[in-house]
Amino acid sequence: MIRRELVEIGQRAKQAARQLAYASTESKNKALLAMAEALLENEQEILRANTIDVQAAEDKGIKKSLINRLRLTSQGISNISSALREVVNLKDPVGEGEVWTRPNGLRILQTRVPLGVVAMIYEARPNVTVDAAALCLKSGNSVILRGGSEALESNKALAKVIAKAAEDSGLPAGCIQLITETDREWVQQLMRMNEFVDVIIPRGGAGLIQTVVQYATVPVIETGTGMCHAFVDRDADYEKAIPIVINAKTQNPGVCNALETLLVDETIAEDFLPKVEEELKKHHVALKGCPRTCAILPNALPAEEDDWVLEHLDLVLSVKVVSDLDAALDHIYRYSTKHSETIITENYSKAQRFLKEVDAAVTYVNASTRFTDGGRFGFGAEIGISTQKLHARGPMGLKELTTIKYMVYGDGQIVT
Amino acid sequence: MIRRELVEIGQRAKQAARQLAYASTESKNKALLAMAEALLENEQEILRANTIDVQAAEDKGIKKSLINRLRLTSQGISNISSALREVVNLKDPVGEGEVWTRPNGLRILQTRVPLGVVAMIYEARPNVTVDAAALCLKSGNSVILRGGSEALESNKALAKVIAKAAEDSGLPAGCIQLITETDREWVQQLMRMNEFVDVIIPRGGAGLIQTVVQYATVPVIETGTGMCHAFVDRDADYEKAIPIVINAKTQNPGVCNALETLLVDETIAEDFLPKVEEELKKHHVALKGCPRTCAILPNALPAEEDDWVLEHLDLVLSVKVVSDLDAALDHIYRYSTKHSETIITENYSKAQRFLKEVDAAVTYVNASTRFTDGGRFGFGAEIGISTQKLHARGPMGLKELTTIKYMVYGDGQIVT
Repeated sequence: MIRRELVEIGQRAKQAARQLAYASTESKNKALLAMAEALLENEQEILRANTIDVQAAEDKGIKKSLINRLRLTSQGISNISSALREVVNLKDPVGEGEVWTRPNGLRILQTRVPLGVVAMIYEARPNVTVDAAALCLKSGNSVILRGGSEALESNKALAKVIAKAAEDSGLPAGCIQLITETDREWVQQLMRMNEFVDVIIPRGGAGLIQTVVQYATVPVIETGTGMCHAFVDRDADYEKAIPIVINAKTQNPGVCNALETLLVDETIAEDFLPKVEEELKKHHVALKGCPRTCAILPNALPAEEDDWVLEHLDLVLSVKVVSDLDAALDHIYRYSTKHSETIITENYSKAQRFLKEVDAAVTYVNASTRFTDGGRFGFGAEIGISTQKLHARGPMGLKELTTIKYMVYGDGQIVT
Repeated sequence: MIRRELVEIGQRAKQAARQLAYASTESKNKALLAMAEALLENEQEILRANTIDVQAAEDKGIKKSLINRLRLTSQGISNISSALREVVNLKDPVGEGEVWTRPNGLRILQTRVPLGVVAMIYEARPNVTVDAAALCLKSGNSVILRGGSEALESNKALAKVIAKAAEDSGLPAGCIQLITETDREWVQQLMRMNEFVDVIIPRGGAGLIQTVVQYATVPVIETGTGMCHAFVDRDADYEKAIPIVINAKTQNPGVCNALETLLVDETIAEDFLPKVEEELKKHHVALKGCPRTCAILPNALPAEEDDWVLEHLDLVLSVKVVSDLDAALDHIYRYSTKHSETIITENYSKAQRFLKEVDAAVTYVNASTRFTDGGRFGFGAEIGISTQKLHARGPMGLKELTTIKYMVYGDGQIVT
């Protein structure tokens, strides 16, 4: 049995979704601008709430990088507010579509409509509360948010401000709701509320995502775990290979599209590895190598099985020497989480084989895996990066928060 | 723990999928033609196997309509073979896509690729074994089939013939596999083989589909339960309304797009109901009515709550008098399974409201719900009709058996 409070949240969300489904783009944009304004106006209240979260995290001795993600500043709130204004400028996918006419005269429209009720389950960063709500609203969905307990006070303040602004501007009550109960049972029930929730999008670490996949009966869009590889082929141009490896590993090591494993063709390993190591050292990257790598690079630590399986999400790079492209493809086939994979080569046929044979959301030739991002792909904003194959794959923008619906115009047709 | 035999089936399917993903359309079509030929050549073997199933079903006293679905004839096998040839003529969606170039010169291709491994769980009709395998192969997927136990011998014969033909023509071993074990534990494990299976498509009754949705951790595409409504508005043209109601209810009452509930505007109920009843009587349709319907039609039986909730899938129609369009929309909102819904009206604004406000895969004006079908929509063939919102909605053809993949062509780009 789903507990009464959750059923009420579900009913409100579903009721709001029914109205939001045919809200005009104008009315949704008006709400987004009101939300952006309200964040600035209520900055002090939000910062006060955030201070409580940060203090509690510090008292618990949570590590500094996580506390930094949690912390809001006046500038941070201004950035969140600006991001909201950018969502206003994105094209509303609702109502777009195609039309064709059947020989019997039936006119069939395939049009984009909102998914309905989207539940977001996410971890530390409070800005997700606002980003996710904005993208869901713009695409005509109501949203149920369930953030991490460390950010509870911040999320409560943010959600209160934006929900009020959205409702005051005319959107239906219940279009943005935050679950403020941190008891695990609530989130477990949320994952099974098929009657009220159309899709769950988990955003966070591999543990959170696996829990949702295993436990949910509501359809899930898996996001984010990125065990990304770069294969430096014997025909690579070092002028491209070294900057790409450095960029993919160091530009933002804590994110899902960062490089985790470097595969190097054995033909060039003795020449290439010391050169790339020198550059990696300047960026304080520690290496975990296969036996052949360790023989070439005495400073590398021996890699263990987990180094090929799990994301470091840190300034650590696993390195393996492979016999050729086939061996690289086999390694990637075995360990890839199907997020982003890149080959560095000047060889046409090997580039094409890599693009074709690697099964991942994004396959690259001669480019950094860090490009896997809705903004960098030109989508304007993203709600996450799907690593599953159903519904959405790779960076998800507004379109991925919609589904299709057929509208058929007849004048008395029956089947024969 | 997944049992060893299933892990082996999963590994073979995954290995086959890796090769099938880049099989040419030519090689897939060659295999489909060989499969069509092999069915005709092995007709006797297939019919013998089918006789065993039919005999067993008769011994068990299974009802006649189900036995008819199960029974194969020489003509039936010829039809299945012809259907295979039609799949050859369908356009292969794999490799289609779009391309754009980012300001930094990155060329991004968004292309269609197969899902990978598709598991089909279905009930009685043995032709599904061949249809599903053909559509999966054509779209580059390997398929794991698990049919109903009543059709086991027929399915074994069919799967053996088509799998051998496909492999002999050059497709990878394991591209078509049938689970021949009818123990429930096997299908339960199949639903949780996320490592090997990319999607599960259940086809059958509401019970089967709910079991899969509740139990599977592999992503599911729900198909088929159709609690379809027709609303005859006060502005309806009876010349359209009566044929549409008759067609939607009687042309094939056992299928998911057949009409289950008739809603009639109170303004015309006393006039319209006796007229439609007269025609329905000619087709031997029994009526279950709300109190107001029963007052107008003394022959109607009183409807119970279940008559609004569950598909009759038979020559039975539930009938309710409603006060207006809003009341009809509320009834549909409450009871619809979001499959197919139709309004019969000459009123422009009410038609538009119905199309827009009813949340279903297909909404119609002045047409029979029976048109919700891949063939009738112009898709050529269908693997099922999705009643969920994620990935696919409405009739699913080859395109819905694919996903997308991004291929990015760079020349040294890094993010800044």
